[in-house]
Amino acid sequence: MSEANFELTPDRLELLTDGVFAIVMTLLVLEIHLPTLAHEAVASQLIPALQALVPKFTAYVISFILLGIYWIGHHNLFHFIKRVDRVFLWMNTVFLMLVALIPFTAGLLGEYGDQQIAIILYGLHLIVMGILLSAGWEYATRHHHLVDPRLKPEFIQVVRKVILFGPACYIVAILASFFHSNVSMLIYAFVPLYYILPNHVDRHLPRRQEHKHDEKDAHR
Amino acid sequence: MSEANFELTPDRLELLTDGVFAIVMTLLVLEIHLPTLAHEAVASQLIPALQALVPKFTAYVISFILLGIYWIGHHNLFHFIKRVDRVFLWMNTVFLMLVALIPFTAGLLGEYGDQQIAIILYGLHLIVMGILLSAGWEYATRHHHLVDPRLKPEFIQVVRKVILFGPACYIVAILASFFHSNVSMLIYAFVPLYYILPNHVDRHLPRRQEHKHDEKDAHR
Amino acid sequence: MSEANFELTPDRLELLTDGVFAIVMTLLVLEIHLPTLAHEAVASQLIPALQALVPKFTAYVISFILLGIYWIGHHNLFHFIKRVDRVFLWMNTVFLMLVALIPFTAGLLGEYGDQQIAIILYGLHLIVMGILLSAGWEYATRHHHLVDPRLKPEFIQVVRKVILFGPACYIVAILASFFHSNVSMLIYAFVPLYYILPNHVDRHLPRRQEHKHDEKDAHR
Amino acid sequence: MSEANFELTPDRLELLTDGVFAIVMTLLVLEIHLPTLAHEAVASQLIPALQALVPKFTAYVISFILLGIYWIGHHNLFHFIKRVDRVFLWMNTVFLMLVALIPFTAGLLGEYGDQQIAIILYGLHLIVMGILLSAGWEYATRHHHLVDPRLKPEFIQVVRKVILFGPACYIVAILASFFHSNVSMLIYAFVPLYYILPNHVDRHLPRRQEHKHDEKDAHR
Repeated sequence: MSEANFELTPDRLELLTDGVFAIVMTLLVLEIHLPTLAHEAVASQLIPALQALVPKFTAYVISFILLGIYWIGHHNLFHFIKRVDRVFLWMNTVFLMLVALIPFTAGLLGEYGDQQIAIILYGLHLIVMGILLSAGWEYATRHHHLVDPRLKPEFIQVVRKVILFGPACYIVAILASFFHSNVSMLIYAFVPLYYILPNHVDRHLPRRQEHKHDEKDAHR
Repeated sequence: MSEANFELTPDRLELLTDGVFAIVMTLLVLEIHLPTLAHEAVASQLIPALQALVPKFTAYVISFILLGIYWIGHHNLFHFIKRVDRVFLWMNTVFLMLVALIPFTAGLLGEYGDQQIAIILYGLHLIVMGILLSAGWEYATRHHHLVDPRLKPEFIQVVRKVILFGPACYIVAILASFFHSNVSMLIYAFVPLYYILPNHVDRHLPRRQEHKHDEKDAHR
Repeated sequence: MSEANFELTPDRLELLTDGVFAIVMTLLVLEIHLPTLAHEAVASQLIPALQALVPKFTAYVISFILLGIYWIGHHNLFHFIKRVDRVFLWMNTVFLMLVALIPFTAGLLGEYGDQQIAIILYGLHLIVMGILLSAGWEYATRHHHLVDPRLKPEFIQVVRKVILFGPACYIVAILASFFHSNVSMLIYAFVPLYYILPNHVDRHLPRRQEHKHDEKDAHR
Repeated sequence: MSEANFELTPDRLELLTDGVFAIVMTLLVLEIHLPTLAHEAVASQLIPALQALVPKFTAYVISFILLGIYWIGHHNLFHFIKRVDRVFLWMNTVFLMLVALIPFTAGLLGEYGDQQIAIILYGLHLIVMGILLSAGWEYATRHHHLVDPRLKPEFIQVVRKVILFGPACYIVAILASFFHSNVSMLIYAFVPLYYILPNHVDRHLPRRQEHKHDEKDAHR
């Protein structure tokens, strides 16, 4: 190590990021309170009281899955990041700031999905997050600045397209909200599926990681 | 490392998982508030006010122990996981989503244990978690997909049985709730003990880990 | 690694433990809310409203320092733990369960320090935690079960005494509460100082860690 | 490892620190609740209700950025810390205690920025944090106590100046609050920019970190 090294390793960035994700994922559980019922009312009112919580559970599940997608995406990208610098650190910080707001916009869409403003805010939120991720990828891969020099241009291009697919869909969804809000909701339901299912990044790439696992065997 | 490597190391999955467990474990403490008493009432009412908190402490302890069991189980399984892929990542994400709901169903059982709906929901919750863990183990060990190739089939089988023992008991408990809810509660109290006490996985296996510790000595 | 290895490495235990400590340390901040004042009342009432928060800040600081002591103690002990087993894992889980309750008993003492019940509960809480830590140390060092075989008996003995000093004082404090509660409070104020200041564990031990740091240089 | 080693590695300190930062960063999101509106009022009142949340969003963003600055600063400093001792551990603990209060003072400034008391408390808070960071740096670098012996004095001096720049500005801001509170607010807005933008620490230093990355390649 030399004192010149003000570039940083990604380890602690991952620690902070995973901490933020873990907290935000469990945040919505705080909204689901046990029903408090008078003793004589329990038998008749417990089931209805639990049914009344269903929308909160739905918002929790939607938000958790969305956060799962972004976490796995972040995880995947950071697999290729070899070092971080000040600019990249701040891109990640702003990204985390937006991550922590997902329960809010997801809840807004769940509660007020019939209102255009909810559809637009949800879409805008995810578009900005997609643009940030995309900018991070461009910044990291330009001249292979923060990634492995052996990373192939074709691969960089595939990742770029996968990242931008979401925001592109969300732009269409926002435009559609001016005509048929149902179309917007369909798009919002479809995009997460695209990211959950094994995609062409996974499929079209050869597998050559044996030496990696040997390393893990040896060093952990 | 090659750019083809879209399979991932389990490190960050463990980070996220431990973060979620840590948060969920401490979540119920948020429900235990200091009693606020008027100055002149403190001497006479502090002890009764503290006694009134006992059920909350009980729910906290039960939930903490349950989470401890799942955390240690997760910890044990991941000891054998050498790599993760997209499917496994999502299995784990859904598992975490259910982990964060344990304080809710445990609290429900604590508060409304005389209601069949509470008994059924608690059992169903833990059955689904058990099935998920089990599916994860099957997925990871089929063709030794994500585990060490040297893992013996007999050991895989022992772990399978230990995982499925809980859900099997919980099915019996749910059925019993249609006749005697006390039997269900007894089963619910017994199953955690099975997992806390050293079990036959620990007992029947030879000990051969010396080189592992040397490694730790050398690399940490 | 062999499949026989159901003993575990301490890494994830540290992750979970640090997560729980981080959460519990910041928990009391949730209790300190910004004063909400009507626009015309701000000029005259902001300062009194802030002064009214002072007891909450005090409880926060006391609780944070107490948690800092236990975290550093845990940190120090784990420095010598080379592996963990099921029993040790559960000792740690119960320890964490008690850690998360520190803000409660510390708050109780802060708010109702003139009541004997608060003095007794605070003392009992910390006695049980001390006994648990002590039991963990005995369990880990017996036949050098979970620690480095080179650890000297004299050192094990010094650590034992440092751990048990706190609980011993707290027993005296509880007994004193039957006569002069001020004496109890003095003891409660003194014990943390003992653990914060460099103690004879630090002082009486030679320094021989150079090769450790070289390792770190090389492997991080 | 020898039993004499009561000095500690910085790893777990980083874990705890990152956990605390992650929690504190997301704490303010808990303050932003979904508006709950009666069914017939949604169409007309959702947008005003969202607008009413804007100040909370602003406080969230300010607080997040401030925490981001301190986290990156902490991250940068710890890059040079090779070992920690009891004194340094406690400096860090008190630092974390103050970190967790940032949402409070930042919120105070956001809500009551026209009150001198809010300006003074915010400034004092950040001055104390700066002094603590600075004291930590002096302590760690004196005789190269806790840092790499090859760290150059000129570099230590540059870092010292960067750390103290903030507190110096905040002293001016507090003094200015006795004359023109707008000047104070301008200084408060300017200082974070100084730390966000690439500064002379980054600029004036040569880059010589290649072997570091090779290490990472090999050992992760």
